[in-house]
Amino acid sequence: MVDPSLLDSLDGQLEWQRELYKHFHRNPELGLQEHQTAARLETELAALGYDVQRIGGTGVVGVLANGEGSVVLARADIDALPVTEDTGLDYASTVEGVMHACGHDMHMATLLGAAKVLAENREAWSGTHIALFQPAEETAAGARAMVADGLVDKLPRPDVALAQHVMPVEAGLVGTAAGPILSAGDSLKITVHGRGAHGSMPHNSVDPVVLAASIVLKLQTIVSRETMPGQFAVVTVGSSNAGTAANIIPATAELRLNIRTYDLALRKHVMASIERIVRGECAAAGSPREPDFEYYDQFPLTDNDAEVNARVTTAFTEHFPAGQVYQATPATASEDFGAIPGAFGIPYSYWMVGCVPADDYRKAVANGTVSSDIPANHSPFFAPAIDPTLETATRTMVLAALAYLGKSN
Amino acid sequence: MVDPSLLDSLDGQLEWQRELYKHFHRNPELGLQEHQTAARLETELAALGYDVQRIGGTGVVGVLANGEGSVVLARADIDALPVTEDTGLDYASTVEGVMHACGHDMHMATLLGAAKVLAENREAWSGTHIALFQPAEETAAGARAMVADGLVDKLPRPDVALAQHVMPVEAGLVGTAAGPILSAGDSLKITVHGRGAHGSMPHNSVDPVVLAASIVLKLQTIVSRETMPGQFAVVTVGSSNAGTAANIIPATAELRLNIRTYDLALRKHVMASIERIVRGECAAAGSPREPDFEYYDQFPLTDNDAEVNARVTTAFTEHFPAGQVYQATPATASEDFGAIPGAFGIPYSYWMVGCVPADDYRKAVANGTVSSDIPANHSPFFAPAIDPTLETATRTMVLAALAYLGKSN
Amino acid sequence: MVDPSLLDSLDGQLEWQRELYKHFHRNPELGLQEHQTAARLETELAALGYDVQRIGGTGVVGVLANGEGSVVLARADIDALPVTEDTGLDYASTVEGVMHACGHDMHMATLLGAAKVLAENREAWSGTHIALFQPAEETAAGARAMVADGLVDKLPRPDVALAQHVMPVEAGLVGTAAGPILSAGDSLKITVHGRGAHGSMPHNSVDPVVLAASIVLKLQTIVSRETMPGQFAVVTVGSSNAGTAANIIPATAELRLNIRTYDLALRKHVMASIERIVRGECAAAGSPREPDFEYYDQFPLTDNDAEVNARVTTAFTEHFPAGQVYQATPATASEDFGAIPGAFGIPYSYWMVGCVPADDYRKAVANGTVSSDIPANHSPFFAPAIDPTLETATRTMVLAALAYLGKSN
Amino acid sequence: MVDPSLLDSLDGQLEWQRELYKHFHRNPELGLQEHQTAARLETELAALGYDVQRIGGTGVVGVLANGEGSVVLARADIDALPVTEDTGLDYASTVEGVMHACGHDMHMATLLGAAKVLAENREAWSGTHIALFQPAEETAAGARAMVADGLVDKLPRPDVALAQHVMPVEAGLVGTAAGPILSAGDSLKITVHGRGAHGSMPHNSVDPVVLAASIVLKLQTIVSRETMPGQFAVVTVGSSNAGTAANIIPATAELRLNIRTYDLALRKHVMASIERIVRGECAAAGSPREPDFEYYDQFPLTDNDAEVNARVTTAFTEHFPAGQVYQATPATASEDFGAIPGAFGIPYSYWMVGCVPADDYRKAVANGTVSSDIPANHSPFFAPAIDPTLETATRTMVLAALAYLGKSN
Repeated sequence: MVDPSLLDSLDGQLEWQRELYKHFHRNPELGLQEHQTAARLETELAALGYDVQRIGGTGVVGVLANGEGSVVLARADIDALPVTEDTGLDYASTVEGVMHACGHDMHMATLLGAAKVLAENREAWSGTHIALFQPAEETAAGARAMVADGLVDKLPRPDVALAQHVMPVEAGLVGTAAGPILSAGDSLKITVHGRGAHGSMPHNSVDPVVLAASIVLKLQTIVSRETMPGQFAVVTVGSSNAGTAANIIPATAELRLNIRTYDLALRKHVMASIERIVRGECAAAGSPREPDFEYYDQFPLTDNDAEVNARVTTAFTEHFPAGQVYQATPATASEDFGAIPGAFGIPYSYWMVGCVPADDYRKAVANGTVSSDIPANHSPFFAPAIDPTLETATRTMVLAALAYLGKSN
Repeated sequence: MVDPSLLDSLDGQLEWQRELYKHFHRNPELGLQEHQTAARLETELAALGYDVQRIGGTGVVGVLANGEGSVVLARADIDALPVTEDTGLDYASTVEGVMHACGHDMHMATLLGAAKVLAENREAWSGTHIALFQPAEETAAGARAMVADGLVDKLPRPDVALAQHVMPVEAGLVGTAAGPILSAGDSLKITVHGRGAHGSMPHNSVDPVVLAASIVLKLQTIVSRETMPGQFAVVTVGSSNAGTAANIIPATAELRLNIRTYDLALRKHVMASIERIVRGECAAAGSPREPDFEYYDQFPLTDNDAEVNARVTTAFTEHFPAGQVYQATPATASEDFGAIPGAFGIPYSYWMVGCVPADDYRKAVANGTVSSDIPANHSPFFAPAIDPTLETATRTMVLAALAYLGKSN
Repeated sequence: MVDPSLLDSLDGQLEWQRELYKHFHRNPELGLQEHQTAARLETELAALGYDVQRIGGTGVVGVLANGEGSVVLARADIDALPVTEDTGLDYASTVEGVMHACGHDMHMATLLGAAKVLAENREAWSGTHIALFQPAEETAAGARAMVADGLVDKLPRPDVALAQHVMPVEAGLVGTAAGPILSAGDSLKITVHGRGAHGSMPHNSVDPVVLAASIVLKLQTIVSRETMPGQFAVVTVGSSNAGTAANIIPATAELRLNIRTYDLALRKHVMASIERIVRGECAAAGSPREPDFEYYDQFPLTDNDAEVNARVTTAFTEHFPAGQVYQATPATASEDFGAIPGAFGIPYSYWMVGCVPADDYRKAVANGTVSSDIPANHSPFFAPAIDPTLETATRTMVLAALAYLGKSN
Repeated sequence: MVDPSLLDSLDGQLEWQRELYKHFHRNPELGLQEHQTAARLETELAALGYDVQRIGGTGVVGVLANGEGSVVLARADIDALPVTEDTGLDYASTVEGVMHACGHDMHMATLLGAAKVLAENREAWSGTHIALFQPAEETAAGARAMVADGLVDKLPRPDVALAQHVMPVEAGLVGTAAGPILSAGDSLKITVHGRGAHGSMPHNSVDPVVLAASIVLKLQTIVSRETMPGQFAVVTVGSSNAGTAANIIPATAELRLNIRTYDLALRKHVMASIERIVRGECAAAGSPREPDFEYYDQFPLTDNDAEVNARVTTAFTEHFPAGQVYQATPATASEDFGAIPGAFGIPYSYWMVGCVPADDYRKAVANGTVSSDIPANHSPFFAPAIDPTLETATRTMVLAALAYLGKSN
């Protein structure tokens, strides 16, 4: 059992964390443009005694080597969203059209806080702590950028990786789960080719509007017929665009698909089925050219290692009061965190931290109005309760690290 | 100009024709089973002095060689339909479930009548008259059977072929047209292959029910998008059958299509498009086996030669009172007559003869109730007015023959 | 903890059970026609001292009152399937075209065996045991028939109901689960109305073939778009039939659907969506008459009570060697058992018993050929290994009853 | 028979017409912005002695009253297209992105030429000639604008209206036809309403992408099933647009349709069917709001009066060498000319004038490359041969007017 007495030092630093949080919230930056944010992170980490380096442009990594033992990598994401804030908070975004609407500001203030606890209580643990601040999570570009920039070679190889996310559930609660916790997400742009013609001369055309319609309907069968009932798979055609005028049959149509899965074999099957259907429909339509497929915004599956999750969950349940740690159900959202442990080939766990004032949340549950009354991530009204969210989240980041770095007592 | 004085002999023989008509109507026989009918035709033709032979089983052909000149082939079809008569006529069918519901009995009585006029007035014309009685028109099997049985070798080569059909328009009227007058008709059985499975396990199946549905919808585009607007083409899926139970996904689905065209290039295009669509949809569905295509009941285009039609029409307009010969519009029905001149490589014309009592027809036109009040061919209520239909039809058969065989005066 | 010493008597009666099993297997009877079967069950139950009555025609129920205590209802189903046996067993079906291909013969031999153990060891337990033999499970008609015949009034009210099913997994294994274990299954016949016409005159028709195709494709969206990703729902169109000839547009089309769900709110939603889609498509097609919906073969959800399952599972794990009791995953099949406890308003549990020889099963697992090599229920080759299936199944039936009736030791 | 001797004066004015043509071609103006064009037309007409007035903004009408007799209205359209010229002609458009790509410049030069012939040969005819120059034909707004501006009250009531169009057939040829010669054209914007959601949560959406796809496929049945085979109808979905991102299910989808018909009852039927299908599909999809329908760019049917066409055609065939006047087949394009005689309630005829150099055209016909080698109207390469197009077209405009205004000789 971990000795969490070092968490006693938390009280003295929370005000500093609150200010950090408000600072980041006021000054959001979009993915791969987090220049001010990265600079501030460097400063803070260095002040705590971490060895700091830039990896992947605006990625910032601090390493605190503290004797023999395991190496733990804790990750926070740092980018904001192109959302115009509408919370009315006195620390609201000062950047028009950009907002920390997904809580990454909270993740930064939390990981800095955990680093401070660890840095100031080096006698209580042994090993190496890596605080990794990743850019551009929202566009699935940041983890990839760090890996491409030599992440694996620039850091000691961790034994385990950790991350968390604030969620619109009651503040103070912590949710963990083994196995898939966030879906793999893949976007796919498909262009199909017909032959344009005047609207009054369909016989001179290969009509891509009809072709695209046929594809959209046929894609429904991947989930309805090809996926085992009860298995999670989503194939959404988020956009379908062809033509601009009523009386001109266009030459092409463009579809943009989003694919979500928890099972990588199924993910592969879904992709193969999409391509098979599109090619078959193009053949059926007499399309004069092969369709084009372009995958983008590809998020890996977030698939918690059972052993890591068990160890982390035990650390939480031993520490928090009964009822505060719940069994999280997989969410349909996606994350690129998995690419980081993936690059090292190490296990990881990712957990959820509630951020909604308890009274608000319980009232909404009682009224059955959670989805309408509680602003979720990406909403212009998303406003995590600083307390107790910040403290709970920081505790989880310290406890999970100690599960690997703590000295046995 | 033809000298139609030989038609004066018609009056004396009409009662004999009426009895023939009633006899055939009372004793209908289905295609390729017209044994009694054929025997009677042989007897009558022989009595008129025609050289008679059987060709194609129940096909009967009489040849009357009458000196130098052209050779004219006149054809009547002789089979009945699997329809239960409901006319209440005193000469109604005596065969349960079989009826001359398409007027082939009238065609026989007419051609025998024309043969009698020609046989008894040999001095008025010169050349050779062939009276051909063809079985199994309704199933597109009869003309083919006669051709397969050596039709071309067994007869002198005609210069022209003639045929007619009774239609639900005013009796006494005669309709002619150059070019396509009846559509090419092709039936096609398509079997598509999926993989069966229990209804609760769609992921183990390739669902042929969904595949067939997709094909049916996609086939609509052949007419709506691939055919020049205003050009005649029909692609009907008359039957679509798959599976028998709610909870078993079947292994195959079967579609039966009917295709109608006036233009042989378009016919070929339609067939190619059907096969392209079906193959493409099978590919899209991941079908484990190539689809099967089986064409059947294939009726050729009935495409009147412009010159023959002009010559025949002139013979009619010179003879009949003004207003009795009308410009026929192409009908969507089909015929296998064209296969006979096709075998010889000779031109032909095919015309329409009205058979509805004038009062009934005009009243229905005035009320806008033609389609509901006038029983059409194939109806259990189809009952041609014997007079003047029989006389008018016989006159057209003599006049058209004389257009080629008549001595100039 | 239950005292299972009464199971010692099992050895002495197994041969009798084997003979019963072979007898039932040789003499299968279809649902609601189980006359010989019911007569034999009556005889056997009476011989054991049960008070026997007929309920619902061929349903047989025996009650053994044995002092104070709980009332436990154990149910076995008794009907066979219209399958022609192809096992080559020396005790194969002697009735052409009828076979116990689902293992109900094993269920009967098991429940009679459990009854004999209880009857001969009355000192070891206290309360009332009801052995209920239900007809016509396969058609979802039998439980309903028993309820309609006054089941609730004719029996003492049970505290709990129990049932089991042999499954194509390794013999000797027992699978239990809380919550939904078998899906709700509903069949639905839909008739949509168009207007018939000759195949060459589509403009005179409302084409039901195209309408049905459109419905089939649109129904796919219920699972692909309207069901929460990962939630279990199946909408299968097992049969789609319209028309018989290529050149006749028929007047109606018939679809037969099978619906599977684990969640009753979702079941209701799926049914409402089907009806909405069909009505909308009929409106889109200009259908001249409202569609007809006829639900049939409706199986309730089999939804194990968490507490009953826990109690039964504990009884099993305390008794069987480690590894023999596994966590069953819900199967997509359906059962009408739930209607019986449903009529009483009592909780129940339903478990699985393996029936494939261990060697065969493990080899197939190793080769990845379970689905192709192991004949499943309803297969003409389905042949449960009598040993140890019969013994294991009988033990579960006794143990589960004792979990409620056993005297504490 | 008309006395065409006044056409002798044509030789002397053709160079003036050529210059006018090149002037208009160099200075194209878009619909309702034809300010320079209209000013020049006013000047020219006034110089010829016509009473000139503006009607409908940039519409210019000249009236030449010349004694007793009929009143003939001849119409030319004057607007250019948003096309960037690519002909390389030395008199090419000087306005970037605007081009007389439809030949309206030729129509203007022709009608001014005819006016000059008539104005200078007043002794040869009697009655009133109205030269009407209409703006904005391409957007179907110009004729409507003139009617709305009091056209009917501002002019003497004509007995007949005349118009012509240059076509990509051999220059020197003139095509006429009775009945429908250009289709009715209607554009329709349809907005269907779903409910937006994150791409991973389709169950929270009503997916308008799938709804629109379903509508597109179902619309095909209007031509394939609801229209009499061989009857002209076009339903083109020229654009279908919904959504912008892969992972966001949008709230609406927009379709733009173009409808073409020759028969006004069918036009009405097609529109009713479109609305029925869209409403039905919205109902099937559970759309939360009624769809929106907005018709625009509505072109009337151009339906030549049989008597006017006969009179005009006779005037042409008596004048031109044999073979130069051909029977035009209806074109699928549309025109708003019909709205002008429609406002007066008078009959009209509209004919075609070839404009492709004979050698080019015949070579393309021989090679079967007409559609690829001959630039058609609206092409950036469209370049009518000034000679003999201008002369032929002017002759037709004079001859057709004289058919009503000529003194009998």
